[in-house]
Amino acid sequence: MTGTTEKIIKKYIDGVRNADSEAKAKAKKYDDALIKPPRSFGKLEDIAVKMAGITGCVKNKVGSKRILVFCADNGVTKEGVASAPITVTSSQAVNMTSGITGMSALARNFGTEVVVVDVGVATDFPLTFDGKKASIIDKKIRKGTGNIACEPAMSIDECLCAILTGIEIAAGDCDNDETEAGKREGEIIDLVGIGEMGIGNTTTSAAVLSAVTGTDSDSLTGYGAGISDRAYDNKKNVIKRALSLHGFTDGCNRYGSDFEAVTDILSKVGGLDIAAMCGAYIGAAYAGKGAVIDGYISAVAALLAVKLCPAVSHYLFPSHISTEPGYKLAIKELGLDPYLDLNMGLGEGSGCVLAFGIIEGACAMMNNMATFEGGGIDDSYLEGIR
Amino acid sequence: MTGTTEKIIKKYIDGVRNADSEAKAKAKKYDDALIKPPRSFGKLEDIAVKMAGITGCVKNKVGSKRILVFCADNGVTKEGVASAPITVTSSQAVNMTSGITGMSALARNFGTEVVVVDVGVATDFPLTFDGKKASIIDKKIRKGTGNIACEPAMSIDECLCAILTGIEIAAGDCDNDETEAGKREGEIIDLVGIGEMGIGNTTTSAAVLSAVTGTDSDSLTGYGAGISDRAYDNKKNVIKRALSLHGFTDGCNRYGSDFEAVTDILSKVGGLDIAAMCGAYIGAAYAGKGAVIDGYISAVAALLAVKLCPAVSHYLFPSHISTEPGYKLAIKELGLDPYLDLNMGLGEGSGCVLAFGIIEGACAMMNNMATFEGGGIDDSYLEGIR
Repeated sequence: MTGTTEKIIKKYIDGVRNADSEAKAKAKKYDDALIKPPRSFGKLEDIAVKMAGITGCVKNKVGSKRILVFCADNGVTKEGVASAPITVTSSQAVNMTSGITGMSALARNFGTEVVVVDVGVATDFPLTFDGKKASIIDKKIRKGTGNIACEPAMSIDECLCAILTGIEIAAGDCDNDETEAGKREGEIIDLVGIGEMGIGNTTTSAAVLSAVTGTDSDSLTGYGAGISDRAYDNKKNVIKRALSLHGFTDGCNRYGSDFEAVTDILSKVGGLDIAAMCGAYIGAAYAGKGAVIDGYISAVAALLAVKLCPAVSHYLFPSHISTEPGYKLAIKELGLDPYLDLNMGLGEGSGCVLAFGIIEGACAMMNNMATFEGGGIDDSYLEGIR
Repeated sequence: MTGTTEKIIKKYIDGVRNADSEAKAKAKKYDDALIKPPRSFGKLEDIAVKMAGITGCVKNKVGSKRILVFCADNGVTKEGVASAPITVTSSQAVNMTSGITGMSALARNFGTEVVVVDVGVATDFPLTFDGKKASIIDKKIRKGTGNIACEPAMSIDECLCAILTGIEIAAGDCDNDETEAGKREGEIIDLVGIGEMGIGNTTTSAAVLSAVTGTDSDSLTGYGAGISDRAYDNKKNVIKRALSLHGFTDGCNRYGSDFEAVTDILSKVGGLDIAAMCGAYIGAAYAGKGAVIDGYISAVAALLAVKLCPAVSHYLFPSHISTEPGYKLAIKELGLDPYLDLNMGLGEGSGCVLAFGIIEGACAMMNNMATFEGGGIDDSYLEGIR
């Protein structure tokens, strides 16, 4: 079964198209002709050019806006690395479907769809606050992972299954025919934000990022959703123990250079949420959608996706600078520079909802602005400055 | 006439209410009870509390969203401090009314109203691209200022007139009765973004900020909308000459501590745009509106408004980190920390349009999220972390 799953994943990976460099060059040229001082719209201009690379069109409009939230529990919570009980994962997954959590409160306001996917929640889902069964997509692979400080998080088979789940959820009904792979609708760019809910997942993210980049894990470990100083020291030790147990020499080597290495790291010290999110970036790219990164866990998953499939990088957009210290390394490794600086560390995909507005702004710039010629301004004075 | 204008300005200044500290405390308490890790929504939480201080209500909705653009020319352009010809001021003022400039392209997309005010444009306005007369509010005080490197920018009388113009435009139809001053509608917060159009105004902003803060002007001088390195050196020298001519010892003293000092600086080395914008912040605060700062010029004007009327600070919201180097000092002096990091330096109020979305996000957080109790989660685990 592992062989089959791997084959399907690799078919998706091979189907991710590179950016349309001709369309990007055209978009850059058009952007330069807009009536504004050169480069004065900064990152909005970068976004516009990147979108052209995805759709093949100079001018684009945002189509659907969707947050995909992958929910799973992490066995490492047994080590006291998080303050919240693991039942918070299932409770908040349900609350997301009711639009009453942080991300979903924003999503309701900005016309953003929320899709909640269970890839490994350990406890039963409570009913919604009005007594209904929540609309959660059931893709549970197992009820929480193993405790990475004592055992592998999951088997390679489970890891591949989580990655493929993420791919298929994000790719949606995109035609799977190789010749149609990554088909683009032209001028319409659908956006997906990749979020998560899983108590303990800043611990697994730090372990994965340390192994993938060869960076000392202490510098990648933060207070997550809030723990005491004592619990923070414990969290750092737990991560070091896990890395050591599974043979990842902390701070010494980069282990994550190919498919086998990445899935090995993910299965040993990762989580079902991170694995599915990694897949979601690949699936979004395969389907020609823009994929927006939220905070720490989301950025680590994006980095893994790019390791598995470098072309995914053409589809990635950052959102906000997370308060988790490891975020900065992950986003730097991705070569991205976030748009929002809000001291946020909520997760769920909350930063993506706000970043969608920035991306819509970039579309408005390209669609609504006049060129110097159209605006009746002689731009010859810009010679030598551009 | 100066005496009368000053009296009216001071009546507005006296009418600006302090924040409702009781409402702020209630909002803080409610925010702490929302189902999220403590402080995980960062600046959105600060925004929500600040809004409560303005309206007196814990939960608020954004009412009208409006960008006020004050347009004026600056005589110092004769010194070659800007690359664009001064006709760009009048052309772009007209283009803003057609929704084809950077800010107005964003405004069209996000349902934001644009109000263009002429307080001192030097050249005639061209017709709009479809042959009509542009809808620009005519409050012209004079056709451009004097060249600050040789003479005062304007008289004290003209300066006060510009400030009052800004106040009246921003306050709108707010009841002028002292007992009703700063009346609030409760739960509705109107937002105004304070923008500008005026070739040469990064030069005057640097001169004003240097005089007000006692900071060496070189560190506050940037490339504006784009100039050559040679022109940049000249720009720095021109600012130094202007400061010296008018008796502001560069980098030595803070001159802007009271009404007389601020208006003295503004009239000698400022501009009609900055003066009107300074007034606009006071007018917005007087009317109980949230006032959003754009980039460098807008931040310098906000700082002057707070010098004239400290209570204005309760109504101020930042937007983005401008690429102009002086912006950082101005926003630090205001004690504000911007939300967006987009490498933008366009002006016009463009950053405000995007920041309105962040402020709407803060409203959504307070209005849509459940409390721990309502979300069915026992929050006792947070004890000792909060």
